[in-house]
Amino acid sequence: MNIYADNAATTAVSKTALTAMMPCFQEVYGNPSSLHSPGQRAAEKLASAREIFARHLNAQPREITFTSGGSEADNQALRSAAALGARKGKKHIISTKFEHHAILHTLQALEKEGFEVTLLDIPPDGVVTAEQVKAAIRPDTCLVTVMFANNEIGTIQPIPEIGQVCREAGVLFHTDAVQAAGHLPIDVEAMHIDMLSLSAHKFHGPKGVGVLYARRGIPLENVIYGGAQERGKRAGTENIPGICGAAAAFDEACVSMEENAAYLTPLRDKLIAGLTAIPHTVLNGDPVRRLPGNVNLCFEGIEGESLLLLLDAKGIAASSGSACTSGSLDPSHVLLALGRPHEVAHGSLRLTFSEYNKPEEIDYMLEVIPKIVSYLREMSPVWDELEKGQRPHLI
Amino acid sequence: MNIYADNAATTAVSKTALTAMMPCFQEVYGNPSSLHSPGQRAAEKLASAREIFARHLNAQPREITFTSGGSEADNQALRSAAALGARKGKKHIISTKFEHHAILHTLQALEKEGFEVTLLDIPPDGVVTAEQVKAAIRPDTCLVTVMFANNEIGTIQPIPEIGQVCREAGVLFHTDAVQAAGHLPIDVEAMHIDMLSLSAHKFHGPKGVGVLYARRGIPLENVIYGGAQERGKRAGTENIPGICGAAAAFDEACVSMEENAAYLTPLRDKLIAGLTAIPHTVLNGDPVRRLPGNVNLCFEGIEGESLLLLLDAKGIAASSGSACTSGSLDPSHVLLALGRPHEVAHGSLRLTFSEYNKPEEIDYMLEVIPKIVSYLREMSPVWDELEKGQRPHLI
Repeated sequence: MNIYADNAATTAVSKTALTAMMPCFQEVYGNPSSLHSPGQRAAEKLASAREIFARHLNAQPREITFTSGGSEADNQALRSAAALGARKGKKHIISTKFEHHAILHTLQALEKEGFEVTLLDIPPDGVVTAEQVKAAIRPDTCLVTVMFANNEIGTIQPIPEIGQVCREAGVLFHTDAVQAAGHLPIDVEAMHIDMLSLSAHKFHGPKGVGVLYARRGIPLENVIYGGAQERGKRAGTENIPGICGAAAAFDEACVSMEENAAYLTPLRDKLIAGLTAIPHTVLNGDPVRRLPGNVNLCFEGIEGESLLLLLDAKGIAASSGSACTSGSLDPSHVLLALGRPHEVAHGSLRLTFSEYNKPEEIDYMLEVIPKIVSYLREMSPVWDELEKGQRPHLI
Repeated sequence: MNIYADNAATTAVSKTALTAMMPCFQEVYGNPSSLHSPGQRAAEKLASAREIFARHLNAQPREITFTSGGSEADNQALRSAAALGARKGKKHIISTKFEHHAILHTLQALEKEGFEVTLLDIPPDGVVTAEQVKAAIRPDTCLVTVMFANNEIGTIQPIPEIGQVCREAGVLFHTDAVQAAGHLPIDVEAMHIDMLSLSAHKFHGPKGVGVLYARRGIPLENVIYGGAQERGKRAGTENIPGICGAAAAFDEACVSMEENAAYLTPLRDKLIAGLTAIPHTVLNGDPVRRLPGNVNLCFEGIEGESLLLLLDAKGIAASSGSACTSGSLDPSHVLLALGRPHEVAHGSLRLTFSEYNKPEEIDYMLEVIPKIVSYLREMSPVWDELEKGQRPHLI
């Protein structure tokens, strides 16, 4: 059985999305900036895609900017808010320790440029609180950026409450909604979100397309300079096939959201129950306030990479954390922020599902994974020491 | 007859490119950063695409970075060279007055950050000289960036000679090859090119994919911060379908380059001969040192926009200049740099062809365009004054 259980890394393009893309490669292939009919037909498709994103986010089309992905959208959001803050003499930014690197590394770059960054600690349940945000806000705070749902442990943050705190304090609020968009309801008005990033390939749209929502009146800074596309704020010929595919996928995901969540949640909970029955295994992040398709565990005494390779040999595609940082030998910064010790964080497994996964895949994983964990532990000198009581169990 | 004569703005995706893309949407859809088999299959496709670009540019695969397009590649090239220069106390950059806005606007941003920019004048034939570059180089020059072929008038710059001058002076040389790649031979070694940008959708590849070539040893600065993709120099999940399509299109274009040029050049020259026979009409740019598919003319006494609309009504998709700046009321900065007066520059027409265009399309345009020009001139009060001798002809 081949199981793709890494939907947080990327997803297959849906039939609906691909159908929307296909006419844009060889038929409606004009440049939407062109005055002629082929260009204007492309411009109509672009406008229609923008309207779809605006509608499902409860935004206005002119508040939607298309980018090359979630990372670019994150970069542009933070740089825009920082530039706006700097013009007002406000150079303090609040974020969290378990953001995606598109946020953390941009914040590091901003620190080098003179900004001060406060990274909030992550409570053991993986859910930061609005009170933490409120306590961190200073008179010189120009931006709060907190992810909507974490990309590794899937925990859902109290976005409306954080939005409310920011609104009351007059501080811009950005959320990296890359893992949430298409999976959780988003209403930028009701949730007091000023800026939001999303990425199409996380909800069965194509790779290479992101969206930056920025509330009207917030001036965007260019990350990419050049032509006057996207109201002069994002240079480069618009990726019309990708954008059309992204919009179709987002529409499909939003329309099917409740149904998908109702399908995935019991499968997720069954898998969590079965795998946490393995001794010295812990679920990372709150069991309820998490994405419907996210399971993230630490198994004591094993190395995540070996686990992944053996799972792969059994046809199961999983990850130990973010795909963006794989290849690194460091344990996940998310799990460390959650308080897991290094040796525990190394034994992590992330299984992420979409509505394309089947119930029998869960059964197969429940059969296979405990055996692989046992096998790896049998080979592990660390596990031997743990079992002999020569070192204490950490979980 | 419907004629797409705006291939410098964008092109249709070739069958070859689309065929290369299709398996990447729903079959090989993994994230190339993932350790598992679906991810590694995507990583193999990525490596293969990188190899194709390297081979046709005479570069090495590790010198190829994939971006979201030509604009991003231009931005990254200039920012990287500027940062490198700044570290050595060299903050002078040489470019030309008729670069694409992805270059000019990035240079403007760098000027605000303390760099000094010299923009070379454009000789009447639209070809800058290596002597001009040489004369402008100063001890504090860190970068020369000159486009390979101009995007409006199609003139081909003496890249090997400029590369030689830069190499001798120890100055980095970047070329925006967005209009040249796939249409003209490029050899980064023989031409002494240190950095080069290209864009897939200009040679029948997909929109949303660019390449930055940077000679080994040149440290790249991030334009987009985040994950460790592209050796940490370009964050964001790689657009695998787009990249595979781009590589297939580039391979096809490079293999067919001579054949395409041999096909297009006589068609171009026939059209130029026919249209310059219209009184008070001038070809912009050298008639020989130009892209095989580029025709760019100024017709005195008419407005380019009206011409485009009437051409569109006759099924001909053309442009007055760069699609990236359409919507602007200003005349083309390229034609102004070439020395055309404002009123002449306003009456410009760019017709750009690919191997998909047919000989009978040229005949149709030779029939239709002179009539439209006459019609517009008959309606024009300016033309009336010109004809009555109340104002002098400028061309």
